[in-house]
Amino acid sequence: MELTVNELAKQLKAELIGEGSGLIRSVGPLGAANQAAVTFVTGDKFLNELKQSRAGAVLVVKPVVPDKIGATPQLVVKNVNAALIEALKIFAPKLQPAIPGVHPAAVVAQQVKLGKNVSIGPCAVIETGVEIGDNTIIASGCKIGQNTKIGVNTRLDSNVAVYHNCVIGNSCIILANTTIGSTGFGYYFIDGAHRLIPHNGIVVIEDFVEIGANCCVDRAKFGETRIGAGTKIDNLVQIAHNVIIGKCCLIAGQSGMGGSVKIGDGVVLAGAVGIIDNIEIGDAAIVGARSFVIKSIEPGMHVLGSPSIEHKEALRVWAGTQRLPKLMEQVKELSARVEKLETAKNNSGPGRS
Amino acid sequence: MELTVNELAKQLKAELIGEGSGLIRSVGPLGAANQAAVTFVTGDKFLNELKQSRAGAVLVVKPVVPDKIGATPQLVVKNVNAALIEALKIFAPKLQPAIPGVHPAAVVAQQVKLGKNVSIGPCAVIETGVEIGDNTIIASGCKIGQNTKIGVNTRLDSNVAVYHNCVIGNSCIILANTTIGSTGFGYYFIDGAHRLIPHNGIVVIEDFVEIGANCCVDRAKFGETRIGAGTKIDNLVQIAHNVIIGKCCLIAGQSGMGGSVKIGDGVVLAGAVGIIDNIEIGDAAIVGARSFVIKSIEPGMHVLGSPSIEHKEALRVWAGTQRLPKLMEQVKELSARVEKLETAKNNSGPGRS
Amino acid sequence: MELTVNELAKQLKAELIGEGSGLIRSVGPLGAANQAAVTFVTGDKFLNELKQSRAGAVLVVKPVVPDKIGATPQLVVKNVNAALIEALKIFAPKLQPAIPGVHPAAVVAQQVKLGKNVSIGPCAVIETGVEIGDNTIIASGCKIGQNTKIGVNTRLDSNVAVYHNCVIGNSCIILANTTIGSTGFGYYFIDGAHRLIPHNGIVVIEDFVEIGANCCVDRAKFGETRIGAGTKIDNLVQIAHNVIIGKCCLIAGQSGMGGSVKIGDGVVLAGAVGIIDNIEIGDAAIVGARSFVIKSIEPGMHVLGSPSIEHKEALRVWAGTQRLPKLMEQVKELSARVEKLETAKNNSGPGRS
Repeated sequence: MELTVNELAKQLKAELIGEGSGLIRSVGPLGAANQAAVTFVTGDKFLNELKQSRAGAVLVVKPVVPDKIGATPQLVVKNVNAALIEALKIFAPKLQPAIPGVHPAAVVAQQVKLGKNVSIGPCAVIETGVEIGDNTIIASGCKIGQNTKIGVNTRLDSNVAVYHNCVIGNSCIILANTTIGSTGFGYYFIDGAHRLIPHNGIVVIEDFVEIGANCCVDRAKFGETRIGAGTKIDNLVQIAHNVIIGKCCLIAGQSGMGGSVKIGDGVVLAGAVGIIDNIEIGDAAIVGARSFVIKSIEPGMHVLGSPSIEHKEALRVWAGTQRLPKLMEQVKELSARVEKLETAKNNSGPGRS
Repeated sequence: MELTVNELAKQLKAELIGEGSGLIRSVGPLGAANQAAVTFVTGDKFLNELKQSRAGAVLVVKPVVPDKIGATPQLVVKNVNAALIEALKIFAPKLQPAIPGVHPAAVVAQQVKLGKNVSIGPCAVIETGVEIGDNTIIASGCKIGQNTKIGVNTRLDSNVAVYHNCVIGNSCIILANTTIGSTGFGYYFIDGAHRLIPHNGIVVIEDFVEIGANCCVDRAKFGETRIGAGTKIDNLVQIAHNVIIGKCCLIAGQSGMGGSVKIGDGVVLAGAVGIIDNIEIGDAAIVGARSFVIKSIEPGMHVLGSPSIEHKEALRVWAGTQRLPKLMEQVKELSARVEKLETAKNNSGPGRS
Repeated sequence: MELTVNELAKQLKAELIGEGSGLIRSVGPLGAANQAAVTFVTGDKFLNELKQSRAGAVLVVKPVVPDKIGATPQLVVKNVNAALIEALKIFAPKLQPAIPGVHPAAVVAQQVKLGKNVSIGPCAVIETGVEIGDNTIIASGCKIGQNTKIGVNTRLDSNVAVYHNCVIGNSCIILANTTIGSTGFGYYFIDGAHRLIPHNGIVVIEDFVEIGANCCVDRAKFGETRIGAGTKIDNLVQIAHNVIIGKCCLIAGQSGMGGSVKIGDGVVLAGAVGIIDNIEIGDAAIVGARSFVIKSIEPGMHVLGSPSIEHKEALRVWAGTQRLPKLMEQVKELSARVEKLETAKNNSGPGRS
């Protein structure tokens, strides 16, 4: 794809300041964008960097004084992030779209309902009772277990395994090698052996959920494991049985939730967070990276640490921890001084005064 | 499946107290069970909750005074957990069983021995020299490498990859997307490059082992990586080369063991535990969630923390850590007071006394 | 494979001290090697153990005084590690090599370029525009996305998913169930929803890189996610978008790097390390196991801890942390003593002196 700056401005509904005849073929950050790339500025602190950028155009939210950026043509937009997403779509590498229909090397059971324009890739296995909505893409090597329902406009990438009776909504994306609906880790110790608790429950994934690669979402013992609409989950995340996650959460890579954890709406887990069983995380709470949560968290709180506490207090604890060797020295020295004072006092004690 | 309370009592070998004609179709916890569900009570503290439950029947270990639970029919059993497992099996969602035989879209080498009723799913690949015992199910997309032996009544779910020469026992379950027998992370730095140490060893998984989804069990450099009978492993667990795990252990999600770690029988790793190379964990030890183990652990010990220490001491350390900012204040204030005392003493020093 | 000690010495270019007629069939560590195995000694501290070994021969870097090892034949080599690797190759279990050509159950698009002796396994899916170099092996169930280029002598094990437009070099190994080139975890919150940032960038994996099982390497937003030549990566590792890793690094299991992390050459991440976004790790730095890195690290530094600090200081902090309960007692006791001194001073205050 190649557009003049003028054409790009039109497509992005941007006001153009400067020369519009240059050709743009890609999008890049300030430091890396070349003459044929459009770049972007999200704050005044980047203006210096912009001055040195060789970019062919720049997305800005308000016009920049020209001498501050040399002659770089400016595309003034209402929301730089939104315009950037549009520009990235315009200049995305061209790929052949998934071919609608069932690939001859796919294996689709007889009692399956497929919507319009559904694409089932080679070596995908669709078991009996499955229903898949319009425009949904099931890539190669996926397994969709018995009676699972998948909505419209959803995409499962290669080798995703979905077990039986699960529900996946509309406009979801699940990246490669992820497992949905596996039996959870629940055992009773009876007569000298751990006996698996049958998991009669399911997984429900609501609309607009995105799940990264190599994740695990276990089915419920009873009822549901549920991921709320609009929630986004990164790679290698573990979601145990009966976890309930609210809407519009962000759960970064390698986080793990124990059984029956309940997470509100708009929660952020900032990466490699661990949460033990039965914890509740209130709406809009933020859990800092690598935190270990062993107590429920109030709505809106920002916690950090292992175990996690209020974020600023955690930073003080970290600072304190790192000064511990020094503190121990101080206490030792203080102890010596107190002993000296005690000795002096005893030598000039009541008996002698 | 639908049973009267009477019929269910008979199947569970339970004594029925109360009305037996109600219809039961599922199992649920106290809070969620409806009129058509059987629920369960595992301790007196739940009796109040039971009173408010709408469940159609309840599993109890001893009869409950009727007014305490309203009119809910009671199924008195010897072991509620065992009866609950049976009830969950009775009311499990009905699924079509795996079809015995080799699916036409599977790829099975010529020199393969398959037992009776073995089921090989579509797009599974069984390499030469493999042996698979009676009733074992290899789901779609699995790869079983050369000469690997798998016992009877075992189940490998979709897309499990097992490398060559491994041994998997009887009545095992391995969930989707898990990798067994991959080469371990062992390198020698020779002439300016890391050179991979060939891994001539294997993986041995004993009977009744269950392994979650997206796990990795590396093969040994020499000899074996071994997982003992009855051990259960959760999702996303890393087991490095030459690890030896005993019998009946529970290893919760996202735990990881370095090379040659040796774990006794009946050990519990409570989730996201990390253990460095060559550590030994004694029989029946418990390692708390998110612990980082850098020293071997005696049998029966309960450890916690990062690095892990005795469990109760770790809780004291956690408490202490969180009071560190205050402790630092205290020491600062104490220091000022000592200085004041010293000044006073010097002003009324020996020369003046 | 079976060789006399004599023949083995010749193959390893070793000087033989002792009897050369014994038969060797495998390689084993000192404790486990039997009469038909060659073992190895990498330092004097193992000589006692060697004395008790039943091994049929031993690799040593300098001759050992015979009575120290009984009559075990010695193979004196320049580099024990290098000879051990050779011996392990000689006695590796014999497997049938991958069959060159495209398996009839593979699905290969028309516009694909395959080098000489390329092997495409059953149920592998090779999309349009892909190029694969000579002798490269793509195992069963792999998916190679559109336009991806893979070099010569590379091996992808079963069920590896590589997305479109990526570049994988020569002599690489990628173990089963790993995902390369998935979209990174990048969202802008616009008009009340998290909107995915399109990832127009790619993943570049240079020559001689090895990646473990069930790993994730995300593609870049712009430009590249890059793994430098000779770098080795263990299982279950998360590499986020735009991460740049240098040459000859070792990244142990379950480590995770946030977006745009930059890692120099020869860096070691010792296992389950977490690194937040945008951090730089200098050449030859070492990050201890389970460390959490929130500040950039200078070249050559050895850090440890959570958050990570200089390694020796971290050990002092750990020691201090574990003595915290005692320290708190000390401060409490000290406080009491100071109070006593203050009381005494007040009682013998200025008015009375």
